[in-house]
Order: sequence, then structure tokens, then C-alpha cells
Amino acid sequence: MTTTGKQLFTTLESDGTLTLEIAESTFPDPTGNQVLVKMEAAPINPSDLAILTGAADFENADYSPGKVVAKMPEPFNSGSKARHGQRLPAGNEGAGTVVATGDAEMAKALMGQRVSCVPGTAFSEYAIADATMCLPLGDHSAEDGASSFVNPMTALGFVENAKMDGQNAILHTVGASNLGQMLNRICQEDGMDLVNIVRKPDQAELLKSQGAKHVVNSSDGDFMDQLKSAIDATGAFYGFDPIGGGKMVDSCFKAMEQVAVKQMTEYSRYGSNQPKRMFIYGRLDVAPTTLTPSYGFGWTLSGWLLFPFLQSAGRETMARMRKRVLDNLTTTFASSYKEKVDLEGMLTKEAILDYRRMATGEKYLVTP
Amino acid sequence: MTTTGKQLFTTLESDGTLTLEIAESTFPDPTGNQVLVKMEAAPINPSDLAILTGAADFENADYSPGKVVAKMPEPFNSGSKARHGQRLPAGNEGAGTVVATGDAEMAKALMGQRVSCVPGTAFSEYAIADATMCLPLGDHSAEDGASSFVNPMTALGFVENAKMDGQNAILHTVGASNLGQMLNRICQEDGMDLVNIVRKPDQAELLKSQGAKHVVNSSDGDFMDQLKSAIDATGAFYGFDPIGGGKMVDSCFKAMEQVAVKQMTEYSRYGSNQPKRMFIYGRLDVAPTTLTPSYGFGWTLSGWLLFPFLQSAGRETMARMRKRVLDNLTTTFASSYKEKVDLEGMLTKEAILDYRRMATGEKYLVTP
Repeated sequence: MTTTGKQLFTTLESDGTLTLEIAESTFPDPTGNQVLVKMEAAPINPSDLAILTGAADFENADYSPGKVVAKMPEPFNSGSKARHGQRLPAGNEGAGTVVATGDAEMAKALMGQRVSCVPGTAFSEYAIADATMCLPLGDHSAEDGASSFVNPMTALGFVENAKMDGQNAILHTVGASNLGQMLNRICQEDGMDLVNIVRKPDQAELLKSQGAKHVVNSSDGDFMDQLKSAIDATGAFYGFDPIGGGKMVDSCFKAMEQVAVKQMTEYSRYGSNQPKRMFIYGRLDVAPTTLTPSYGFGWTLSGWLLFPFLQSAGRETMARMRKRVLDNLTTTFASSYKEKVDLEGMLTKEAILDYRRMATGEKYLVTP
Repeated sequence: MTTTGKQLFTTLESDGTLTLEIAESTFPDPTGNQVLVKMEAAPINPSDLAILTGAADFENADYSPGKVVAKMPEPFNSGSKARHGQRLPAGNEGAGTVVATGDAEMAKALMGQRVSCVPGTAFSEYAIADATMCLPLGDHSAEDGASSFVNPMTALGFVENAKMDGQNAILHTVGASNLGQMLNRICQEDGMDLVNIVRKPDQAELLKSQGAKHVVNSSDGDFMDQLKSAIDATGAFYGFDPIGGGKMVDSCFKAMEQVAVKQMTEYSRYGSNQPKRMFIYGRLDVAPTTLTPSYGFGWTLSGWLLFPFLQSAGRETMARMRKRVLDNLTTTFASSYKEKVDLEGMLTKEAILDYRRMATGEKYLVTP
């Protein structure tokens, strides 16, 4: 007995043609530790957009009901060679009701329950998910639970990672984002100092009204001075950045180094001994990252992804993190949405051009 | 009783005026664990050039005997704010004879001996050095021992660091450099696979004649294919780069990722799980480093410096490394020099324009 339902697929051909379409799919019966979830809500996260829209030209795309055909420019098309010709599902996370399960006890225990899940195929009427990664939502709505993994676990992951590395302060380059506001709440609860970078005065006001102590505006003429003061006050030589491209990481390293050099008693041609660490966890800007030779050799820049981090952190840490998310789902870890769309609604020109901007605080929720 | 002698000083004023001059200096009596070394030979390493010449304009500088005045362009002048107005000595390492010592036993034991040392003031007739860092050269000449620290310990440090990180292969982006040839010999001795990148066919021939198995030429049209083949053959997802600026690090990460992706069975929007690690240990190119978003998030790029590495590696490892250098000073760790100059000879237009090019295999030796 199989289940059928609508599902979103994204296909990039080697000539750069990107096709997004809603199609009828057949879902196999879950086996073992799998569950079949009737999806009720799934957020469009920045991490979904890489595969969904990428850098394709949606201004001049060909729109029809439930289908869009757009052109992927170079070098992004060649850069995506590994997916050429593959018809891929999308949607990292979501929430819905378990309607069938495999034989494993853990799976069977979830039957009939509303859960959040991380199937990687959440933009769909149904999704096969791993019971280990399902979180029973109790009385919470699917909307409340839809974003309970990616943003909450990422924000918590930053704080966990910082603690593991002996840090008492974190720098975050997009302070006012959904994730940034969450991080601001977590850091206050945990007594971790946080330097927030924002781009607009109203974002600064928003964060301050939420108790943020260190907010610097990158649009201000004295941005670097603001940033140095905040780093000096907190000791935040450890930061997370989802922009990736451009000069933001470079500016952070520069500011960190200038604060460290000011505390040195003797000049060193190699810069300060203060270790400076930045993580790029997204690519809001797909331009190259540029690093100038202006902060010596005591720096490290890494990519950061949630799943590898959780693997390295181990099962116990992950269980503790998930419990904390569930216990505070509508407070610390609450997400808000600008628009709700159904599967077809995801593929209108208006919607795509809006959500692909990834504007701060303007997230879309898909309700299949 | 104090000693006097000639010494090189480099001073950068806030207006960008860089002055190099040979001046008479007074050297205090060594105390404690210090020794006073009458310097006989000191190499001009790339790591010395940062403070010696930087990016200053020596084509149009003002030359007089024992003195040069050049202009440091922006943004390099502002970037060197921390040294503005300071009259700094230079010369990381060298060799000479101990002519006075402090009271400590270790220092006294070196009296009269020829040693290599790391005073940071080696471009001088005399230098105060730390006995702990002095290596008695026995019958070796000062010329043999002059470069026994920076290059040998750096090349050995790469191999030690790679072993600590569980690697069986290393990638090096300037295979034919003095340090690169040394690394090639060490890796062969230790059974560590090495991927050498060179820029010219004769450099490739040179390395191959020295037993190198994997040499790829970045000037070839199929450079990226050569690089991928070599990474695939060796598993070198771990590399060292002294260029810093430009696209070399980016090319290495790209090649590593493409090799890793080829080994994957399923497409992942986040790239491969293969950790990719690069270290920048110099700045032969002071242009910004550019990193493109084409190798997922499983990468880490760090600055790498010898002294912090030695500190983290510990005393025992360092002692073992130094013994290995001394035991193989004229074989594995031999350096060669294109020219010998005295202190005044360092400051002629001809010499500066030549050694600041940092051409492969064309190192200068200063004999004060």
C-alpha cells in the first residue's frame, strides 16, 4: 500500500535550465525506524534556497501554474555540476502528523502524533522521516513546530560550540535575523556576551528592545570603531557569519586584531597572538569572500554546518539541545512568518522574488 | 663593558616614509640565559621582508651608502600603523660565535662556540640571543648553520602538524622553493605523500630529479585536472601555502572538493563531508585572498606561524625536531644562496630589487 501526494522537485540541467515543479509523487511505506508524516507546515529557510532558487534569474523566468523554468547563470551552473540532471526534492524541516510507521518501537510510538521532522523533502504533502530526528510536539501547532530544528539548533549550536572552545562571547554578523534574535535570547539566558551586527537603525532598536547590549550598525560611518569597542568590551574574538561573500568576515578579523594589538606592549611583524576565529554558516552573498593581509597569522576561518557539528557534539549534547528547544518552543525559539503559501503558491513570481531576497524577518511558511 | 657594532634598522613613519639604515649600535652585556653572538651569516628570508621592505617602492627610493628612504603605499602604510615611528631591528635567524654569556649554566656552556640562533636582530654585527634557542654547530660553518631554524623547522613543522592531525599526505603550493625542496626530502624520508605545485617546467623537472612523485604545474592549461589527479592519488586534503593573496588557496579547495564529490554516491547541496584544510604561512602576494562558494562548508583556512606551532607542539617535540635538523644540516636541511652581501650591501638598489622578488631558489645571505 503506497500513498500519493503532491511534492516539489528542483532539477538543474547541464545547460543551466532550472525547473521547479509540483508533481504527483508516490511515497513508499515506512520501514524500520521510518515514519510517514502528512506535512502541515514547512519554513523556507535560507539553507533551502541554495537548492531551490540558487542564483537563477527569476525575474525573466517562465511561470506556469505549479511550474517555473529559470536560467542559472555562470559560474553558478558549472559550480553545481554535481546535481546536473538530478530531480531533487527540497525542504529541510517541517511539522505534520505521523500517519504510518515502520516496525521499530521508536517509530511506532509516534503513530498519530504531531511531530517536527527533518526529512530534507518537507515541501511535500507527505514525507518519510527518521523517527530519531522527530520531536513530538504535544499540544503545539504545526506552525509552532515547523521551524524547531534548523534555526533553534543552529543558534544553540553556536553557543554550545563557543562553550566547547572556551569562549565567553560571540560575534554574530546578522544580529536581527530570525536566527539572530533567537541567539540573542539564548545568550542572555546563558550569560554569554553577544556582539550583534545589523544594517539598519530599526534593527538595532529591535534588538535593544529585546535586551541586546552590544549592537553595531554596519551602515554607520563609524562602524569599525563601534565594532572595535564592542569586541573590546566583550572579548568576542569568535564569530558566526551567514553572509559569506564580500568583506564582512574580513572586517571582523580586522576589528578583532586591532583590539588585540592595542593590548600588546611590543610591536610584532606577525600581528597579535590573540586567536581569532570566524565561521561562515551560509552564503547570503555568493560573491567571493575576500581576506586582506591585515591581521597577521593568528586567525582561522571555517565553514560551519549544523549536521557535522551535531555529529561531533554527540548524542547526549544533541538530546539536551532538543529538549531545551521543545521546552521553550513558543518563547526562546519562536519563529515568525511574513507569508503562508501552499505548494503551488511557492512557485509564483511574486512569492519567489520575495522570499529569495531573504530579507531580515520576512520568512515564508509553506502549508502543503 | 658594552660592545659596539653595526646594525640594520627599519623605521616606518606615519606618513609612509620607510627608512632602512645601517647604524652604530651598542649591545648590552648578556644576562641570565642570554648570549652575545658575533654574527657571521644571516639569510634574508621571506619572513624578514615583511618588516624590511614590505610593499614599499624601491624602484624610486632614495639610495645613499648604508641608507635607503622609500615610500610605503596605501593601504599598506595604514595597515602597519602599529609600527609607526618605531626604529626596529630585523633578521630572524643566523649563525655566529658566542663571545659573551650570562650567568646561567646553559648560556655559559656555549661560550666560544659557533651556534645558530634566532635573535630577531640577526642583520647586525652582534646579537643578543636566548641560549635555549641556540644550536651548537660543531664543525659546521656559519653559512651551513645560518638557515637552520626558520625553513627547516617550518618544513618539519608542516609534517609534524599533518601527523598530529592524522594526515598521510600534504599539499604544498610552492614546491620548488628552498623550503619546498626541503619538505620534499622530509616527506620522502617519512613516507608522507606530497603534492607539489610549481609554476615552471624546469621547477617540475628539478623536483622530480629530487624524487618528487606528484608535481603539478599551475601554468599548464590543465592545471586543475593535474591537481585533482594528484589529490585523488594521495588523499592530500591538507595543504600549506605561502602566497596568501589571490586564488591559489581557492583552487586547492576546489580541486579537493571535486575529488571528494566524485567519491560520493548521493548529491548534497552542502558539498562533501570530506574535511578540507589549508594553512597560509606567508604573504608572497599581498593582494586579498579570495574564496569562492564552490566547496561547501567542510573547509577550514588558518594562518600558520612557526612559533605558535612550536609552543603548541611542546618542548619535547621541538627538541626532537632540532636534533633532526642538526643531524642532517648539510643534507635534508641544506639551504643554498644566490648572493652574499654585507650589511651595506643589503641596502643597494640592485640587491633590494633582487631579493625582494623572492624568486624561487634565489636567496641572499648576509655576512655582517
